[in-house]
Amino acid sequence: MLIVGELINSSRKAIKAAIDAENAEEIQKIAKDQYENGAHYIDVNAGTYVGKEDRYMKWLISTVQEAVDVPCCIDSPDPKVVEAALELHKGTPMLNSISLEKERWDALRPVVAGSDLKVIALCMSDSGMPETKDDRLSIASDLINNLVKNNVPVENIYVDPLVQPISTNDYYGREFMSAVEAIMTEFPGVHTICGLSNISYGLPERKLLNQTFVVMAICKGLDSAIVNPLDKRMMANIYAAETLAGRDEFCGNYLSAYREEKLAL
Amino acid sequence: MLIVGELINSSRKAIKAAIDAENAEEIQKIAKDQYENGAHYIDVNAGTYVGKEDRYMKWLISTVQEAVDVPCCIDSPDPKVVEAALELHKGTPMLNSISLEKERWDALRPVVAGSDLKVIALCMSDSGMPETKDDRLSIASDLINNLVKNNVPVENIYVDPLVQPISTNDYYGREFMSAVEAIMTEFPGVHTICGLSNISYGLPERKLLNQTFVVMAICKGLDSAIVNPLDKRMMANIYAAETLAGRDEFCGNYLSAYREEKLAL
Repeated sequence: MLIVGELINSSRKAIKAAIDAENAEEIQKIAKDQYENGAHYIDVNAGTYVGKEDRYMKWLISTVQEAVDVPCCIDSPDPKVVEAALELHKGTPMLNSISLEKERWDALRPVVAGSDLKVIALCMSDSGMPETKDDRLSIASDLINNLVKNNVPVENIYVDPLVQPISTNDYYGREFMSAVEAIMTEFPGVHTICGLSNISYGLPERKLLNQTFVVMAICKGLDSAIVNPLDKRMMANIYAAETLAGRDEFCGNYLSAYREEKLAL
Repeated sequence: MLIVGELINSSRKAIKAAIDAENAEEIQKIAKDQYENGAHYIDVNAGTYVGKEDRYMKWLISTVQEAVDVPCCIDSPDPKVVEAALELHKGTPMLNSISLEKERWDALRPVVAGSDLKVIALCMSDSGMPETKDDRLSIASDLINNLVKNNVPVENIYVDPLVQPISTNDYYGREFMSAVEAIMTEFPGVHTICGLSNISYGLPERKLLNQTFVVMAICKGLDSAIVNPLDKRMMANIYAAETLAGRDEFCGNYLSAYREEKLAL
């Protein structure tokens, strides 16, 4: 399971404060904590700094990369910000995210075409948010085909089927999970990824729902997730689910996680 | 989700002690606790009392039924014990369990034929434990067909695909879950049920595995389970999973469970 640590996002108060104070130590601590708890990529998002996003994105990337040896997930829809980030990023980052919306596609296509970037492909188009499994599958299919035509290798594509709140429609969880299954079955080699927390928007005990939802999505084939690696129960659930899904030879990862005290709650 | 409370089993020390002392109060407390925490059936098992199982089974059933208004799940392979239990049980119990093993089938077939019992049909035959999804599906198919021929309505059949430890084979979880999905798809109206704890046998942090496994099984269609209703996390996971699977209109059950403080952990 590929884990993208989601914490370094300027929409979070503590991160905004650290960025405003150019407190590199605080950002590096959060990067390290996420890395030590299982993150393979550190998401960096400075989206709240309108007009200065490129400057803060660059500061975040160099600050994070001084502290940890894993790549960043560059979280911006703005090609100028992404290009600025790519110039100084060491190693191969992930891009969060391209979509089928014309404006975003046209802006980011030249950035990803022929690159070795890992690309999150968000199931969103100009016809609005997808409702059903079939809506998602249709957008995913166009995104994958278009990316492959632009020389993005299939194994670098991470389709995000787009989680929507079950408080809005009680079938949104089911449709999302069916989409994961369909994408993983119909496009061998492609990955699926998602942020989880939208699922529980508007409901109480959101952590419980998020922690349960990740297990169900893994059961349907999800192989990457954008999560808070410091949520111990979330990470323990991911270890357990991977093992139960038959993706853990001789339960080796589960037993390692146990020895590293990652399963005790 | 239909919940069978598993705690009243003479193989558990505390229960054996209560039975030995004919401590009705203790048994009734455990029955009530399970009922109040969501059990729709109370499993009763006196299997360790060889030669006296019928006597203790009868005592357990009348003791439990004095305390709670839900039926029992009569947990014995011995037709004499089951018949003795049926004579005094009020309402319609569940039977745990018939199987395709010739001896057990022949013994219990006359008990279930034409009855209105809820029948757990365990995927076990004389060729040994099933390994794969297809092994389970083949036994399930024979069991369902034979039960229906014996006038057991399809909606009274609860197929138990038989959980085996992933410490023995790392694909046992996956094969079990695929079997649940196949049975629920191919035999509309039939239910699936299981005890969970075998999955984690031989591994550390067993509760985590059991609590995660139930979520995955629900994701594949499981609609009943034999569990410890006093395990708050297990029950909270079940509520959350049902809602996320799209089986909870307007998230109504989830919100009720929240108001009843069943989700706070």
